[in-house]
Amino acid sequence: MKLSLEQTDTRPDYDRLLRLGMPEFVYAESKTPDQVVKSLRALFKTHKACLAYRATQAQFRAVKKSIKSAQFNALARIIRCGKMSQNLAGKVVVVSGGTSDVPVVAEAVEVLEFLGCKVRTLQDVGVSGIHRLQKRLSIFSDAQVTIVVAGMEGSLPTVIAGFVKLPIIAVPTSVGFGANLGGITTLLSMLTSCAPGVAVVNVNNGVGAALASYRILNTFKREGA
Amino acid sequence: MKLSLEQTDTRPDYDRLLRLGMPEFVYAESKTPDQVVKSLRALFKTHKACLAYRATQAQFRAVKKSIKSAQFNALARIIRCGKMSQNLAGKVVVVSGGTSDVPVVAEAVEVLEFLGCKVRTLQDVGVSGIHRLQKRLSIFSDAQVTIVVAGMEGSLPTVIAGFVKLPIIAVPTSVGFGANLGGITTLLSMLTSCAPGVAVVNVNNGVGAALASYRILNTFKREGA
Amino acid sequence: MKLSLEQTDTRPDYDRLLRLGMPEFVYAESKTPDQVVKSLRALFKTHKACLAYRATQAQFRAVKKSIKSAQFNALARIIRCGKMSQNLAGKVVVVSGGTSDVPVVAEAVEVLEFLGCKVRTLQDVGVSGIHRLQKRLSIFSDAQVTIVVAGMEGSLPTVIAGFVKLPIIAVPTSVGFGANLGGITTLLSMLTSCAPGVAVVNVNNGVGAALASYRILNTFKREGA
Amino acid sequence: MKLSLEQTDTRPDYDRLLRLGMPEFVYAESKTPDQVVKSLRALFKTHKACLAYRATQAQFRAVKKSIKSAQFNALARIIRCGKMSQNLAGKVVVVSGGTSDVPVVAEAVEVLEFLGCKVRTLQDVGVSGIHRLQKRLSIFSDAQVTIVVAGMEGSLPTVIAGFVKLPIIAVPTSVGFGANLGGITTLLSMLTSCAPGVAVVNVNNGVGAALASYRILNTFKREGA
Amino acid sequence: MKLSLEQTDTRPDYDRLLRLGMPEFVYAESKTPDQVVKSLRALFKTHKACLAYRATQAQFRAVKKSIKSAQFNALARIIRCGKMSQNLAGKVVVVSGGTSDVPVVAEAVEVLEFLGCKVRTLQDVGVSGIHRLQKRLSIFSDAQVTIVVAGMEGSLPTVIAGFVKLPIIAVPTSVGFGANLGGITTLLSMLTSCAPGVAVVNVNNGVGAALASYRILNTFKREGA
Amino acid sequence: MKLSLEQTDTRPDYDRLLRLGMPEFVYAESKTPDQVVKSLRALFKTHKACLAYRATQAQFRAVKKSIKSAQFNALARIIRCGKMSQNLAGKVVVVSGGTSDVPVVAEAVEVLEFLGCKVRTLQDVGVSGIHRLQKRLSIFSDAQVTIVVAGMEGSLPTVIAGFVKLPIIAVPTSVGFGANLGGITTLLSMLTSCAPGVAVVNVNNGVGAALASYRILNTFKREGA
Amino acid sequence: MKLSLEQTDTRPDYDRLLRLGMPEFVYAESKTPDQVVKSLRALFKTHKACLAYRATQAQFRAVKKSIKSAQFNALARIIRCGKMSQNLAGKVVVVSGGTSDVPVVAEAVEVLEFLGCKVRTLQDVGVSGIHRLQKRLSIFSDAQVTIVVAGMEGSLPTVIAGFVKLPIIAVPTSVGFGANLGGITTLLSMLTSCAPGVAVVNVNNGVGAALASYRILNTFKREGA
Amino acid sequence: MKLSLEQTDTRPDYDRLLRLGMPEFVYAESKTPDQVVKSLRALFKTHKACLAYRATQAQFRAVKKSIKSAQFNALARIIRCGKMSQNLAGKVVVVSGGTSDVPVVAEAVEVLEFLGCKVRTLQDVGVSGIHRLQKRLSIFSDAQVTIVVAGMEGSLPTVIAGFVKLPIIAVPTSVGFGANLGGITTLLSMLTSCAPGVAVVNVNNGVGAALASYRILNTFKREGA
Repeated sequence: MKLSLEQTDTRPDYDRLLRLGMPEFVYAESKTPDQVVKSLRALFKTHKACLAYRATQAQFRAVKKSIKSAQFNALARIIRCGKMSQNLAGKVVVVSGGTSDVPVVAEAVEVLEFLGCKVRTLQDVGVSGIHRLQKRLSIFSDAQVTIVVAGMEGSLPTVIAGFVKLPIIAVPTSVGFGANLGGITTLLSMLTSCAPGVAVVNVNNGVGAALASYRILNTFKREGA
Repeated sequence: MKLSLEQTDTRPDYDRLLRLGMPEFVYAESKTPDQVVKSLRALFKTHKACLAYRATQAQFRAVKKSIKSAQFNALARIIRCGKMSQNLAGKVVVVSGGTSDVPVVAEAVEVLEFLGCKVRTLQDVGVSGIHRLQKRLSIFSDAQVTIVVAGMEGSLPTVIAGFVKLPIIAVPTSVGFGANLGGITTLLSMLTSCAPGVAVVNVNNGVGAALASYRILNTFKREGA
Repeated sequence: MKLSLEQTDTRPDYDRLLRLGMPEFVYAESKTPDQVVKSLRALFKTHKACLAYRATQAQFRAVKKSIKSAQFNALARIIRCGKMSQNLAGKVVVVSGGTSDVPVVAEAVEVLEFLGCKVRTLQDVGVSGIHRLQKRLSIFSDAQVTIVVAGMEGSLPTVIAGFVKLPIIAVPTSVGFGANLGGITTLLSMLTSCAPGVAVVNVNNGVGAALASYRILNTFKREGA
Repeated sequence: MKLSLEQTDTRPDYDRLLRLGMPEFVYAESKTPDQVVKSLRALFKTHKACLAYRATQAQFRAVKKSIKSAQFNALARIIRCGKMSQNLAGKVVVVSGGTSDVPVVAEAVEVLEFLGCKVRTLQDVGVSGIHRLQKRLSIFSDAQVTIVVAGMEGSLPTVIAGFVKLPIIAVPTSVGFGANLGGITTLLSMLTSCAPGVAVVNVNNGVGAALASYRILNTFKREGA
Repeated sequence: MKLSLEQTDTRPDYDRLLRLGMPEFVYAESKTPDQVVKSLRALFKTHKACLAYRATQAQFRAVKKSIKSAQFNALARIIRCGKMSQNLAGKVVVVSGGTSDVPVVAEAVEVLEFLGCKVRTLQDVGVSGIHRLQKRLSIFSDAQVTIVVAGMEGSLPTVIAGFVKLPIIAVPTSVGFGANLGGITTLLSMLTSCAPGVAVVNVNNGVGAALASYRILNTFKREGA
Repeated sequence: MKLSLEQTDTRPDYDRLLRLGMPEFVYAESKTPDQVVKSLRALFKTHKACLAYRATQAQFRAVKKSIKSAQFNALARIIRCGKMSQNLAGKVVVVSGGTSDVPVVAEAVEVLEFLGCKVRTLQDVGVSGIHRLQKRLSIFSDAQVTIVVAGMEGSLPTVIAGFVKLPIIAVPTSVGFGANLGGITTLLSMLTSCAPGVAVVNVNNGVGAALASYRILNTFKREGA
Repeated sequence: MKLSLEQTDTRPDYDRLLRLGMPEFVYAESKTPDQVVKSLRALFKTHKACLAYRATQAQFRAVKKSIKSAQFNALARIIRCGKMSQNLAGKVVVVSGGTSDVPVVAEAVEVLEFLGCKVRTLQDVGVSGIHRLQKRLSIFSDAQVTIVVAGMEGSLPTVIAGFVKLPIIAVPTSVGFGANLGGITTLLSMLTSCAPGVAVVNVNNGVGAALASYRILNTFKREGA
Repeated sequence: MKLSLEQTDTRPDYDRLLRLGMPEFVYAESKTPDQVVKSLRALFKTHKACLAYRATQAQFRAVKKSIKSAQFNALARIIRCGKMSQNLAGKVVVVSGGTSDVPVVAEAVEVLEFLGCKVRTLQDVGVSGIHRLQKRLSIFSDAQVTIVVAGMEGSLPTVIAGFVKLPIIAVPTSVGFGANLGGITTLLSMLTSCAPGVAVVNVNNGVGAALASYRILNTFKREGA
């Protein structure tokens, strides 16, 4: 048996949509364009919508040949073909500390919109000038979940958790250098936060934060429906 | 100025209840019994209920002299005086991998009950005998949030996130040795999970998981009310 | 004395085949094409078969000029010239979590086939959709060793070790980001697994897993023969 | 609900013996004597034999009151009640580097004997006096598996893997100081070994090495039987 | 030569006072009471004032026998005999996040007062209830240096650096657990802060922060004098 | 909502100059040229001077099109447009260990000059030839702050802190290899220094050291004025 | 087979003296008193002299019953019975940074004297008061090897290596806290030193430094003899 | 003041040759070609010989224009202009584990020859085929120092230290992957070796090992002369 690129098996988890209310996404990092195309086509055929993240321009060009509706958000590194047909009640606010964090914000926003969630963003309100945040707290008043994206020392979720009642999903980013350790310090810092009830996802994991938020909205949609 | 134990200032965040819908808790670790008493009394006077975590028997005995209704859960290391008068709609399921994880489960349960949340537990369903979990999935059907407590390699939240639609708050524990690194491996493992939408709190942080769950239930209570 | 590339001594361990039942392989990483050629030629002359791993296209082109039968598996990064003449009883199953893990699977498969072992693969059965694995457990029924390749949180060997009696060699991969720490988290997670009797090799070490499996089959061949 | 020690659920994985050919063991670390008793009694009732590891004298005394046949190996920290009735073909050699590694050797030996495996040990043959090992290589000639236990820089499995054809399970120990990092350096060192086909278990994990060895012997027993 | 406790040489840096404007302090950690006494007596004889930090009750009792004026602040773990005769212009504000940080505050205050600096403290103003700090910003208006002591995620210096013009010396504490890594996360977090111009000292290093502040006041005293 | 590069919000902290006496700087790392231009233009319009650090030639070329007075110091990686109109009393000495540390020195010098501080540098006086430093100690005599830049083991601030009364801001650099860990060892080494009163900023953080120094000079300017 | 303490095999490396010119020492850490006695007696019988390090009072009391000439240096934690009969030409200078480093100095001195080397010590000459060292450089003039023992940032070997031609063996100690990481920072700092030709041994490894020095003296004794 | 490349000061430590018996070398890593030229020319003018390490082809081309006798060893990454006029008695053996370690061997050899030392090398004698080493032990018989270069688990110095009386300088290399951590595991492993009296230098630090060896030979040259 010679294992070649052509012979890679893919086994998309087609019934994830049924079990979890969300389809499988393709993690494009270090995959060949062919692998990404193969997986997206299988998912698109079943669900009429699909998404790949951490994708490259080269992967997008290959997908575009197969799926005409494919779109690429280069900032978010997301390839999206259509969107899920559902529309969830509720709204997610995505707050971020600095403009360098925007790619992670964009990743979260793309995923939330794909899944039919409403989103608002509040960018560049880092804590070294905290008045920028304090003047805009009203944005949280009609939301159900908050995603807080921050790099460096990662204190933004701590501060927001002191102001806001909502569920808070903190996303550390790798913005910083030296003692930042590629975002690991930011991650550990958020986890050891003195603020009550902050939950954390992996470094730069906009997708994860979006899915954690979706789980919340989706659960209560069922309740309220 | 001579800083002595008697002169330590405490500034309880009394209006946290108003801002965040939850009172401040006392982090008893490395505090003297006197410091714990002082803080709990101030909070008890204002809120008619208070809670300290990571507490010792010695701290409890000191508190008991001041606040008659104080109770101590030695397993959870929690001192509780009364409970919040509210009762939230919704239910939290707390799942755990092994019996060594029970102190963290107990900590989460104590906090949730103090805050007026309904809780059910499902213990000792680690993934090396996964049938124990698969036979009991119905426990999730009328819940709104899942807390998953696990030590060692921490794969339980990953597996549950493949079965269950609910919001999932994963709590790594320090159960394990050597490569476990006191729970840090468990923590990092949960954060890099392949499962969609798992949010994580600090090692052994039952309180944090309870508060993250409470934020979810409390937000939707407002919505539904 | 001027140490130049031409003057590098190589001392292949020719009698390893006699002592250990397996020939020396060439670790091609960071070697020049000339160094790889020199070592492979020496081994090929003695054993009529040789193998280099972590090789590049450039190294392969140089080898091809010297050894006509050389073949390159670009996915596995393995240069193979012929194969060992032996055929071992028994079979190895190589299971993997996701399609990004396939290069490591390919590396293991190439080495096992070179050494005369029978192999079957089961790809893309990650634990976030565990039914994909549970439906295919029969693949293990006539095998003697299992290699489990997984990235991210690395929970696949834990789950399989709960289903399967066979010896299990776990191979962490560097698939993941942030808290994954280039596969080190996956490695440590597998080592602290709650599952009974999982043995682990280095990150992405398909060769090592293949050789550990070969040692098992080879020992019992002697016994059974 | 008040979670107390009495209310901890235990769910022994009774059918592990059927699925995996080995019963569940009790991980006694940080459990109360009562928890250990409760778990051991349940397992003893079902299997007529049971084992707890990382146990203390206090836990043993509590167990002894319930299960008369219980025995304690203080060096190995193992409580054993009876042994499995099976006797496996094949033999395991347990080699160790220094006398400080003996508790880990003892742990592995206890588990192997409990499971019905034959064992021989070769102690205190560290590589700084390598002649001690080279004079005794014949001990491997009629064995099927080798467990190599070593602390400090952990080079013993590397050296043995150059001499011996058998499957090798390496167990790093926490013997050493400073740069040893409590055995983590030993662990990582064994994992990055230049020797072919060494598989590794967690620091001080004599139980894990024994179970990995048992999986090998048990598989080939089935084959040969 | 037999090196015994009696034969340890000490070579106090007597002219440090002249060179640096501050005397040598005795680092009492892991010293015997006799070693501490010997060093303090030598310094006391020369400077008529001396200080040991990280000291124990047992060390204090031994010192008290030799130096009648010795005083012990158990919270700060500082033995002080007299104080330097100088009085510096300027004032240092020591701010802290929670009551668990008070021992480090106390250490800094003791050292500053010993050196003749004026100090004010502002305790328990952690950022999860940021209004406690914002209401008290006037405390900084007549100060020249700010020491900010905080544990957990360590965001207090970041927030203060956004409000206050003064030099800021941040002191991470080891208050926290799990991902806090004994204060190392707090330390790294403060170092990678997004706030402008925060300088950091070692974990729990109240002495270091006091001396860094003293260097500032002392330099400008010379200027202004 | 499609988050694209054009839609990134920037919210410069315009009143930082008023609150902190210094304007916001632009952290150019991983920003697009357009993002840098947008931020610098906003700041330039308000303050008539602005600065971006960790900038590239490509970013500079984009800025130059918008702001004619922009200048680029390629060694320091700083884009500067004008300078603040203020001139502070006092002087900063920037000392460095080796010529490889010069980019970090240059970064600090650029920022200090932009803010109106006087600077002198003393380069290549590493401690392995300590006479080079000892002969030049007079440079400190009319300064108010010392910045010490060093890589490798980072012992230069320790040595200088034994000679000089001034406030010392230590900047570790990433000069070194292997055990240097990209400057993290240098950073931790400086933090655990035996020298009294050294404060530390992040690895390669010339900007941070300059701002910490500026806070000192600016505070005493107010006092003295 | 029941592995008990009585059944531990010890295999002293008796001919190490012949091969390496030095006898085996007993590493007493975590050994029982009986194990230490057994090993020392075997070595004493063969060599008429023996040494155990990292020993406790309890181990010493047990040894003293068997070997009358045994002596214990509690500071060095060394049990010594007699000394080797040889006397080496040459001299070792052991320099240390602070009085807290003295136990490591004592360990090195005991070993050197046991092996027949001449030693001189120079204590408490840390670099924050470098004049203490510079005034005493003549101590190196008739020595052949320098051992430099230092904790905290570990800059003493760097400074000495700039003054002294001799071979330098640096020994990091665990004196320090926080960022010191139990001496690991000191270790890494010494390894990344800018000084030419410093060789390093493990944290607190006085024995290792003594043996490295002995290897040097012993080699040249052979040459010169 | 505008700090540009032209304005970088270099202060070669010219009298290092007098103090330490060896000239300063230029660390070329991350320096510009101009900086390397400037430093080498200054040293060449004074000493008539000079050396730069970690150099590139581009740096060499620039140097060659200035110093005609410059030579480049691309494998060792060393630029050498002439050699020191001295010839030392004694000989250094440089042993290495695999052919991937040869660049580090080459670096050490170049430096030793530049300093006038005799060298012999023994390559590719890794411990997984230990007979290759054991057959060649006579190479050590007329040497005075051994440098042992090894990557991966780094067990070669441990094994050699059990065979050879000489001083041993161990050099870890970054050959390996995953758990090797870029050579840091190799480094820590060598430091925690069970072998007596091994001293260690930084990862890939052939220069450091050569200088440590030179210090030994140079000291005894003085003695013997």
